[in-house]
Amino acid sequence: MKFCSQCGSSVEQRIPTGENRLRFVCAHCQTIHYQNPRIVAGCLPVWGEQVLLCRRAIEPRRGYWTLPAGFMENGETMAEAAMRETDEEACARVRDLHLYTLFDLPHISQLYVFFRAELADLDFCAGEESLEVRLFHEHDIPWNELAFPTVGRTLECYFADRIDQRFPVRNEGLAPLRPRQ
Amino acid sequence: MKFCSQCGSSVEQRIPTGENRLRFVCAHCQTIHYQNPRIVAGCLPVWGEQVLLCRRAIEPRRGYWTLPAGFMENGETMAEAAMRETDEEACARVRDLHLYTLFDLPHISQLYVFFRAELADLDFCAGEESLEVRLFHEHDIPWNELAFPTVGRTLECYFADRIDQRFPVRNEGLAPLRPRQ
Repeated sequence: MKFCSQCGSSVEQRIPTGENRLRFVCAHCQTIHYQNPRIVAGCLPVWGEQVLLCRRAIEPRRGYWTLPAGFMENGETMAEAAMRETDEEACARVRDLHLYTLFDLPHISQLYVFFRAELADLDFCAGEESLEVRLFHEHDIPWNELAFPTVGRTLECYFADRIDQRFPVRNEGLAPLRPRQ
Repeated sequence: MKFCSQCGSSVEQRIPTGENRLRFVCAHCQTIHYQNPRIVAGCLPVWGEQVLLCRRAIEPRRGYWTLPAGFMENGETMAEAAMRETDEEACARVRDLHLYTLFDLPHISQLYVFFRAELADLDFCAGEESLEVRLFHEHDIPWNELAFPTVGRTLECYFADRIDQRFPVRNEGLAPLRPRQ
């Protein structure tokens, strides 16, 4: 951030009166520009014994498999955002959503949230951000070709919880991905 | 938003190529300025049979009672944000946090998140944003003087769930406050 979105003047970084952390503050109109974490919402779409994954057509992690998910928009609920992303990336409709995993990713200031959901029908296909969309049995999951740790961890939890059909909501942190060799 | 925070030129509202909603876009450098929901994180601090509430010293809802909560900052986990706000507003330390209620407030583009927590000691006092901080038994809760519906609903859930000592995580929407008469 270099300029004030309210008046167009230059911003500076300083600690405003009564606060204790650096903010971007407008030197002219004194507006404080707060920056906050963003929410990524998505679905784990289930069809019988299988789950739906999308192969990413965009960076980051193009070519890797993911659960449909993306940035929550203003004016949405988390579940609405998760359904919209599932429609956009997999052209798929889901129902019976249940909040399932929440991952704090403070190193990138994101909260990742997944809902378990029932895939409504088999009329899915790759959306613009996907190369391919398909159903996987547990033994076919491409564990080494998953796009993000949040996806792998959600799938691990799901296959473990499925045994007893108990799906507690989980809030975990996830360490940053190790730099690839 | 009137000016681009990257280059200081005027922004316009338009639908960027490949998207389907209005964004603020810089007419000069083409930066798309996304706006996303914010997370408010807080605690329900419990001391035996009692819970801790703060009377707000600031608007909105000055003079009304609330659970300690505030905007999550970049670089934090939700639980860290909830603990920090509890320290700032009630000068209180909490432990053993458990994710408890999540409220979608799409009309103001916020996600409100409360953790159940154990109050660590009785060395609490009013922080700068509070007029007063005290413990309440269930029958003393000032139900008609609560600051926000999210606070009332979290307390309702807690006292109901406490009977069986089962505290399922809840994700609910909450309708906007009716305009006061």
